[in-house]
Amino acid sequence: MRSSGQGHETAGGAGPFFPKSVKRDIMQGSGEMKVRTYTIEDASFERSPDQDCDVFTANLVDERHGAPVTIGYGRYGPNQSLTEKMAVDDVMIVLEGSLQITSDERTDLVGPGGIVHMPKGEAVTIKAMDEGAVTAYVTYPHWREAR
Amino acid sequence: MRSSGQGHETAGGAGPFFPKSVKRDIMQGSGEMKVRTYTIEDASFERSPDQDCDVFTANLVDERHGAPVTIGYGRYGPNQSLTEKMAVDDVMIVLEGSLQITSDERTDLVGPGGIVHMPKGEAVTIKAMDEGAVTAYVTYPHWREAR
Repeated sequence: MRSSGQGHETAGGAGPFFPKSVKRDIMQGSGEMKVRTYTIEDASFERSPDQDCDVFTANLVDERHGAPVTIGYGRYGPNQSLTEKMAVDDVMIVLEGSLQITSDERTDLVGPGGIVHMPKGEAVTIKAMDEGAVTAYVTYPHWREAR
Repeated sequence: MRSSGQGHETAGGAGPFFPKSVKRDIMQGSGEMKVRTYTIEDASFERSPDQDCDVFTANLVDERHGAPVTIGYGRYGPNQSLTEKMAVDDVMIVLEGSLQITSDERTDLVGPGGIVHMPKGEAVTIKAMDEGAVTAYVTYPHWREAR
């Protein structure tokens, strides 16, 4: 149960000792989720879809698990950037490095501990600085389903 | 517009040059939100409701602003703890210090960069260690309305 995306379960969950019916409920999204904690070690990064640059996402909780939000870690290579029109409300917390956030009228530089809220429907360019960046993100609803 | 909870607007928003009708729409939750960035400097901490210990929350985005999620910073004094049955899905990212997260069957220690997912309906005890802790949080739906 320490495989990627499963996190450290703090209360039962879909572990090997759980009846299969409960396991199935969790996978089908009945809301049978337990409290869990995650670190970057749990992240299994994939290239962010529809682009070629070094921007990676790793969902930890998403449409497969039954919660209303997607939770994950993001990784940006040095000087990599991504422009997107938001399909969901996306909240990003910068953990390492820094990101330049540009929307219609303004550019902000966000370092560790900074929060970026990108509401659904807004266009935004996210650009990493020389040292790259690591983020945590929460989206509502699930970003992969909304694309 | 740098008052608490307003953040650094990156694109227009409810600034002084915006017509009152637009301002009103934002306050009433029409979804007219723009991309914004926040730092801990934007946080205006209040004691977490229904308890006496030194645990503080600072909503930056909530039911007043039109997004589906509440976003904020949390602060835990040294060795303070809080037990709660979750009224909403709450995702907490530890930014400084560390938190001991206890649910039905398990206790995890979560340090900087760690993520805690507390699904709606679950009971959890959050306890800060000697150095206290600072967190960022995202809840769906709005935690203040769900209490």
